[in-house]
Amino acid sequence: MNQTFFKDYPILFGGDYNPEQWPEDTWEKDLTMLEKAHVNSATINVFSWALLEPKEGTYNFSMLDKIIALLGQHHFQIVMATSTAALPAWMTKKYLDVNRVDTHGIRQGFGKRHNACPNSPNFQRLAKGLVTQIVKRYAGNPNIVCWHISNEYGGQCYCDNCAQAFRIWLKKRYASLTELNNAWDANMWSHTFNDWDEIVPPDQHTDEFENGGATLGGESLDYRRFQSDSLLSNFKMEKDIIRELDTATPITTNFMGTQKDLDYFKWAKELDVVSWDNYPSFDTPASFTAMNHDLMYGLKHAPFMLMEQTPSQQNWQPYNALKDPGEFRMLSFQAMAHGANTVQVFQLRQARNGCESLHGAIISHVDSTETRVFKEAGQIGAELQKLPADLLTSQRHAQVAIIFDWNSFWALDFALGPNVRLQYVDQVHAYYQYFYSHNIPVEMISPEDDFSDYQVVIAPALFMFKHGLADKVNDYVHAGGNFITNTMSATVDEHDNVYQGGYFKQLEPALGLWSEEWDVLPPVSTCQITFNDQTTAKANIVCSLLHLGTAKPLASYEADKFYNATHAVTQNAYGKGHGFFVGTYLDQAGMEALGEQLMPLLNLKTNDQPTADSQGIELTTRKSASTRYDFLINTTADTRTYHYAAPANAKDLLTGKAINSGVLTLAPYAVQIIQAN
Amino acid sequence: MNQTFFKDYPILFGGDYNPEQWPEDTWEKDLTMLEKAHVNSATINVFSWALLEPKEGTYNFSMLDKIIALLGQHHFQIVMATSTAALPAWMTKKYLDVNRVDTHGIRQGFGKRHNACPNSPNFQRLAKGLVTQIVKRYAGNPNIVCWHISNEYGGQCYCDNCAQAFRIWLKKRYASLTELNNAWDANMWSHTFNDWDEIVPPDQHTDEFENGGATLGGESLDYRRFQSDSLLSNFKMEKDIIRELDTATPITTNFMGTQKDLDYFKWAKELDVVSWDNYPSFDTPASFTAMNHDLMYGLKHAPFMLMEQTPSQQNWQPYNALKDPGEFRMLSFQAMAHGANTVQVFQLRQARNGCESLHGAIISHVDSTETRVFKEAGQIGAELQKLPADLLTSQRHAQVAIIFDWNSFWALDFALGPNVRLQYVDQVHAYYQYFYSHNIPVEMISPEDDFSDYQVVIAPALFMFKHGLADKVNDYVHAGGNFITNTMSATVDEHDNVYQGGYFKQLEPALGLWSEEWDVLPPVSTCQITFNDQTTAKANIVCSLLHLGTAKPLASYEADKFYNATHAVTQNAYGKGHGFFVGTYLDQAGMEALGEQLMPLLNLKTNDQPTADSQGIELTTRKSASTRYDFLINTTADTRTYHYAAPANAKDLLTGKAINSGVLTLAPYAVQIIQAN
Amino acid sequence: MNQTFFKDYPILFGGDYNPEQWPEDTWEKDLTMLEKAHVNSATINVFSWALLEPKEGTYNFSMLDKIIALLGQHHFQIVMATSTAALPAWMTKKYLDVNRVDTHGIRQGFGKRHNACPNSPNFQRLAKGLVTQIVKRYAGNPNIVCWHISNEYGGQCYCDNCAQAFRIWLKKRYASLTELNNAWDANMWSHTFNDWDEIVPPDQHTDEFENGGATLGGESLDYRRFQSDSLLSNFKMEKDIIRELDTATPITTNFMGTQKDLDYFKWAKELDVVSWDNYPSFDTPASFTAMNHDLMYGLKHAPFMLMEQTPSQQNWQPYNALKDPGEFRMLSFQAMAHGANTVQVFQLRQARNGCESLHGAIISHVDSTETRVFKEAGQIGAELQKLPADLLTSQRHAQVAIIFDWNSFWALDFALGPNVRLQYVDQVHAYYQYFYSHNIPVEMISPEDDFSDYQVVIAPALFMFKHGLADKVNDYVHAGGNFITNTMSATVDEHDNVYQGGYFKQLEPALGLWSEEWDVLPPVSTCQITFNDQTTAKANIVCSLLHLGTAKPLASYEADKFYNATHAVTQNAYGKGHGFFVGTYLDQAGMEALGEQLMPLLNLKTNDQPTADSQGIELTTRKSASTRYDFLINTTADTRTYHYAAPANAKDLLTGKAINSGVLTLAPYAVQIIQAN
Repeated sequence: MNQTFFKDYPILFGGDYNPEQWPEDTWEKDLTMLEKAHVNSATINVFSWALLEPKEGTYNFSMLDKIIALLGQHHFQIVMATSTAALPAWMTKKYLDVNRVDTHGIRQGFGKRHNACPNSPNFQRLAKGLVTQIVKRYAGNPNIVCWHISNEYGGQCYCDNCAQAFRIWLKKRYASLTELNNAWDANMWSHTFNDWDEIVPPDQHTDEFENGGATLGGESLDYRRFQSDSLLSNFKMEKDIIRELDTATPITTNFMGTQKDLDYFKWAKELDVVSWDNYPSFDTPASFTAMNHDLMYGLKHAPFMLMEQTPSQQNWQPYNALKDPGEFRMLSFQAMAHGANTVQVFQLRQARNGCESLHGAIISHVDSTETRVFKEAGQIGAELQKLPADLLTSQRHAQVAIIFDWNSFWALDFALGPNVRLQYVDQVHAYYQYFYSHNIPVEMISPEDDFSDYQVVIAPALFMFKHGLADKVNDYVHAGGNFITNTMSATVDEHDNVYQGGYFKQLEPALGLWSEEWDVLPPVSTCQITFNDQTTAKANIVCSLLHLGTAKPLASYEADKFYNATHAVTQNAYGKGHGFFVGTYLDQAGMEALGEQLMPLLNLKTNDQPTADSQGIELTTRKSASTRYDFLINTTADTRTYHYAAPANAKDLLTGKAINSGVLTLAPYAVQIIQAN
Repeated sequence: MNQTFFKDYPILFGGDYNPEQWPEDTWEKDLTMLEKAHVNSATINVFSWALLEPKEGTYNFSMLDKIIALLGQHHFQIVMATSTAALPAWMTKKYLDVNRVDTHGIRQGFGKRHNACPNSPNFQRLAKGLVTQIVKRYAGNPNIVCWHISNEYGGQCYCDNCAQAFRIWLKKRYASLTELNNAWDANMWSHTFNDWDEIVPPDQHTDEFENGGATLGGESLDYRRFQSDSLLSNFKMEKDIIRELDTATPITTNFMGTQKDLDYFKWAKELDVVSWDNYPSFDTPASFTAMNHDLMYGLKHAPFMLMEQTPSQQNWQPYNALKDPGEFRMLSFQAMAHGANTVQVFQLRQARNGCESLHGAIISHVDSTETRVFKEAGQIGAELQKLPADLLTSQRHAQVAIIFDWNSFWALDFALGPNVRLQYVDQVHAYYQYFYSHNIPVEMISPEDDFSDYQVVIAPALFMFKHGLADKVNDYVHAGGNFITNTMSATVDEHDNVYQGGYFKQLEPALGLWSEEWDVLPPVSTCQITFNDQTTAKANIVCSLLHLGTAKPLASYEADKFYNATHAVTQNAYGKGHGFFVGTYLDQAGMEALGEQLMPLLNLKTNDQPTADSQGIELTTRKSASTRYDFLINTTADTRTYHYAAPANAKDLLTGKAINSGVLTLAPYAVQIIQAN
Repeated sequence: MNQTFFKDYPILFGGDYNPEQWPEDTWEKDLTMLEKAHVNSATINVFSWALLEPKEGTYNFSMLDKIIALLGQHHFQIVMATSTAALPAWMTKKYLDVNRVDTHGIRQGFGKRHNACPNSPNFQRLAKGLVTQIVKRYAGNPNIVCWHISNEYGGQCYCDNCAQAFRIWLKKRYASLTELNNAWDANMWSHTFNDWDEIVPPDQHTDEFENGGATLGGESLDYRRFQSDSLLSNFKMEKDIIRELDTATPITTNFMGTQKDLDYFKWAKELDVVSWDNYPSFDTPASFTAMNHDLMYGLKHAPFMLMEQTPSQQNWQPYNALKDPGEFRMLSFQAMAHGANTVQVFQLRQARNGCESLHGAIISHVDSTETRVFKEAGQIGAELQKLPADLLTSQRHAQVAIIFDWNSFWALDFALGPNVRLQYVDQVHAYYQYFYSHNIPVEMISPEDDFSDYQVVIAPALFMFKHGLADKVNDYVHAGGNFITNTMSATVDEHDNVYQGGYFKQLEPALGLWSEEWDVLPPVSTCQITFNDQTTAKANIVCSLLHLGTAKPLASYEADKFYNATHAVTQNAYGKGHGFFVGTYLDQAGMEALGEQLMPLLNLKTNDQPTADSQGIELTTRKSASTRYDFLINTTADTRTYHYAAPANAKDLLTGKAINSGVLTLAPYAVQIIQAN
């Protein structure tokens, strides 16, 4: 598969389009309008099952035929969805089992979307039927540049079909019930299973608690993995159908950043290209959006599609603030800076009704090309045309890697204790944010990725260390790597069994310490840590109590804590590298203080050239075989300056002007794409 | 039907009475006590089905016979309820379908009240049976002055009988599934219905979201209308039975102010007289109570019954503060000022047990006529006797009308977006409160009412404009009316379809502007608007971005908003009238600032004569054919003064003293009813 | 039964041990380690049903045999549980009825624990079968020193079997439906029952409200009593089986302090010895822990077992702070001070997996005897060996009794009104805390206990006065007692029927007053009361409006309350005693102010010898036939001093040093056990 995955340059610019929600005579007008904004693509057929198959086995493609033909006439690249993301009403009426059963044991009825039980034989059969028809009919259409299977996969089902499939899944994983009982420590609370059929899905009306905690972490983790795998099977079933008739067109489904339900690293292996939907809230930091992009990039260490974003405002959040002028454009180029090779939106025409009608679009309810948002879309479209094809081949490079791991995410959430404020994604973001705000590129990686490419590998709150990972970390450090981790990491194995013998004992070579216990800080706590140079930072959530071996202290807990002497932050030399340990969680100010201490020890090359008011300026680089592209972006609503160290022959791709080193002034949301060969 | 709907003067003073909860020998004693407080009426038989029909088809009226006979002997006017508001246990046991199914798909069991599925054939048959027996037995009883059907109708059911009835209701509304699919935009998320039987009630286990939002606004709106209509059918079924044997006695059911479930404007057409239950909380502003009264008056533009209130304290609120001495009396006369022709309470004797036992009553647990509350009731009773029969024929008159619309209420609540803090009733109250606090009478009207009677018509957050309403508004302004509306009004049609072509485009003649988009303000926002005279006010929740045509700006958004130039408040001359637009929502201080700007432009005659400490004084007027009645009420716990402009021959009805113009001092909760011929 | 209930001295020191969760080869190592900490006991077999009976009727005791044998070899005292607290998976699969039905009417599936429907015939039969096997096999084992039936009984079920059993329970309580209908005031809301089979469990899908309030208080109270009795029947069934073969070994089940579900006074009658689980949160005041101990002591007015506590940290609370060094020890001796005769923990070895894996233990995940916690356990173990056997025979003595009553607890919670902030346990604790902080011993008693032993009896918020209790109080005061009660006490009878004729009318002899009504204070209120000496305190939640007869005022409500003149606190002389009434609820500062007023009037001998910084020092005394034991405990993390009035021959039991009167300095969490003959 071609990594750039486009049949044709220029860059794909478009988004979801639902002409079936409009009278047929508006379609032509829509496309003509969209062409004025240089839109060259449409994602179609996401939710049309009830139209395509109005009753079981009866297909009607007349409307879709017309839509596809019209898009072809307008030379639109088509991202072709498969319509399996929402069930038609006849199906949920005829086959009860296609509806999911919720965590309270209640079978859901017809409605909403993303509502199919992944293990329903009826759903599987009918989805197969539909997708087979679609692929037979449209595979080979020259305008179809990408297949988009289903939509925003996620959620869980707890029905009897899932129970049955779960048992089969478990039999593949565990050789015997004895092995399963041991893995899950199932003798706890009389959970010993003596027959496979005794195993039922763990939900709130069975084995999980109201707060989402698990009775048997191992079982709930396996169920979560199984559900992720079940949906992945649905995806693969559709993919296989497509591949029978279309061996070339890339296949994707749209992800959702750090959403919890799916192990995207596992999923990404099955996708030709990652795509995702970027919906920051009014108060989402730019660093969080950037981290999501980098995570999506990291899934395959390759460029991705920005499948959805709103040109103006969302509608499903509590407060759906309007994007400022330039913010839609800024966010589009921020995505590209982090690896997006497309700019797509939800949606091309704003819905006239239904729960998405208050969500923005390129053609708004005003139905005009003269709106502010349409014109901004037009500017983006025009600018995308100025970008060279070579950009799409460019990659991102980082000396720093941060590990993101859905298994740790799940396991921490299923754990009862130690502190309800310990949220996995927040803790990953805390580290990401530090590097982001210093314009140090970060690669988001899986624990299974190769560490050797990176100068620094960071494992924030990496609660689960599968067997072998500790050795890998020790080896990495020994060979010269810098490894940073913190409290609650490396606590359990893949079955949620706590490692015995002292926390971090397995990492003692790398870290030079182990931990005997941890304290928990309630929100009212005021515990401080003090670095060797007397800099202070606020400790939060959990404090590990350490036994230092070869590790050297970098900071201590506050004097009135009995564990003051066990130290809060440490450094350890091992082989050619170093292991760093942070015994607590830190807020943004605390991370700054920590960074000031650690950065001189990490030997990183940075291209950060701050000025006094450069906060909020993001400098991100992509490199192709021949060319470097620096994206210099003002993510804020205020004018900012930045001291840019220009490479030779640097020019602004959008203006064509040469760029020299020096202080650049960036207007609110300004974007400069600086090319240098 | 006689508008005063009383067979006999004096004014009806009484309330709910449940002698079946007490030994028979206490009844006579109760009535004798109540007569000391001049109580002359009792509402009975509200919840006695299980007593009257202890098993199916077996009726026992012996206790009710005795109660009615005794009330007759004591010359009590009887408000006769029909006992269908709570099901007997045998029925819920025998006929599962009489119990409602909740939004999670769970069939409810026996318990509580207001629990019948309105579309249960068994409930309908059995209710018909019971009411037929009651009417046969008691119609014509000279003491029955009013029929009170069921009680506080409300709630929803989502069962299969409702589903079936909903389909029938829909077939009357839509000529075909094609029309329905189009109205609901049902192609969204594969909701296209290909068979009527595919349609199921939208609830949280089908098509609505946890936060109450709808997938298809049109469907959820129709279901809400259908449920309101279903309960109304229950009401009409009982009414028809009564009317067969009793053609004269007025029929009502008790409403609950701005409660959401029922379209009271539609219901009121079926009632002979509106009645309602007034239960302010400890922190309910007097203006909110007044607005509820005015809304109940506005339903039929006629006096109403104050069916319930507590003489002392509620028990079902989080904090059930005791009414101060005089507060029960003040609230009783405030109700009359706004159009109540009766003063009734819940209840005459305090319950000894059950969930209402901590709710106050005229005869409290002390069981004495010497309690503070009993004596205050006695004072009210005596004063009501001093009021002339002519008062009951008097009407209210207002130059200002505020539109209240249950369809907009529902549609805004079903909408996903734009801001969770946008609450319909709050926004209506914001406008009401301004006029109330300036003692300018307001009529609460339906969008379907005639506007031509009013100098000013205000449509706060009137999200839904059914087809035709915009023309009606334009015509009203052209003919000389002043129309005021604000952001998010006029957004959708009766099927929840957003009007295309620019918000307020249909109202461009009247308003002289249209809006392209809106911004949403999170609670942390500090956006200000500035009027032309530099007065400022805080913008909240949503800000419309405007394109001014003929409209003139009255205020602008704060300078650092990019839409500052689009203006925040406007005035437009059209024909002989003016259209005003407010682009955001305002708190009470903001409404004061707005009012200062708008009032000089509205040409209203006011009778407000404030003094320095007159805040909290309410002056409300009713007029009969011959006489004007001014209710001057101190709604506060503090002494207040008021400069009253007395008409000729004014006298205080309660004291008989003449009243001259000048500064009147009103003790806490003081009431003066000033009559002038 | 021997009150000290130990076959062998020394003091039982141990806790829960779950070897079935570990490979067999670790057991011997565990016991050897535990012996180093002087652990001499293990609680076993709490949750092993699925292991013991892997399928119906097939038993396998091989693992348990080995465990018991090994414990015997190590001379461990065994607290032998019966494994009925969690169901095996095969049972919930085979017999649906063993699973509980929740308050929404949803049948639960396999999972968690404490999950058996107490009225399931299948559960009863199978539990009987299992326990019979266990008792047959192990009764007579010389190491078994205590039987521990099930675990932490609690919760409710609302299934059809419970419904049926409830009807039988009701038929024993009420001679007829007429009597039941009258007791429950069931004519309210058409709840009249005309057939016993019409009665269904009151839950949220039937007759209770979302906030937990009841429609018929009498019915919900009876259901709560019935469920408590149902679980008690389960307990008694097991007890009877044990007693058939073992007539001597004490039988217990572990209680949970002030938990709401069970009437522990009724339960305690069936236990040989009370035991309980003490799990303070990071912010639980020492006084609250002490009150729980005293309540557990008061259940039988006898020493109890401290069955569970964590040596280090919990895991199931939101914030599971680590106990400071010395805090585990301090809490262990605080328990003994208040009457514990054992020191036990959950658990001996920390779980490796499952929802208790992050809960502390004596052998932690470090798996070492060198941990901080293990060493502290060792210190406790060693110190317990120094304590004389005589201590176990010692009793507690108090002049002050505070009534705790589960019926009032339930009835207040089921009541709708008056104020959601009125929480029964908080109000009992408010009075307890005052005496505790002044080191005045308190006995926690039932309303059914003899009052004559006490100088002062306090009934905080004792909402329910069963018939006869008022007479008992009046007699107690007349005979010389001091009785203190406050607002909302004595409001309802055992059926939740409000007493008529004025609140406190029945107590008028003792209190010299009655109350006509009450006001409710929202949280924003700032109402103050002022004592005769002008001391002030903040009134909270509710204020009773009083009619004073012979009572003398001690405090009045703030001047701007209309009920200012009715007084807030009163004293009444009656016979040889006094009745005190407090018309409102007070926070801790308010209770201090109240105490300063009341203490001089109560004629109490106190041994409180405060120094300037003695706050947080607890002095608690136990007395045997021959000896007095003063437990002087610093409950805080700071050094404190205390002026101790030493009895003759006083010596520190742990150090052996003589103790003289004077100022003692207590290090953080310091404990002195001072013995004097």
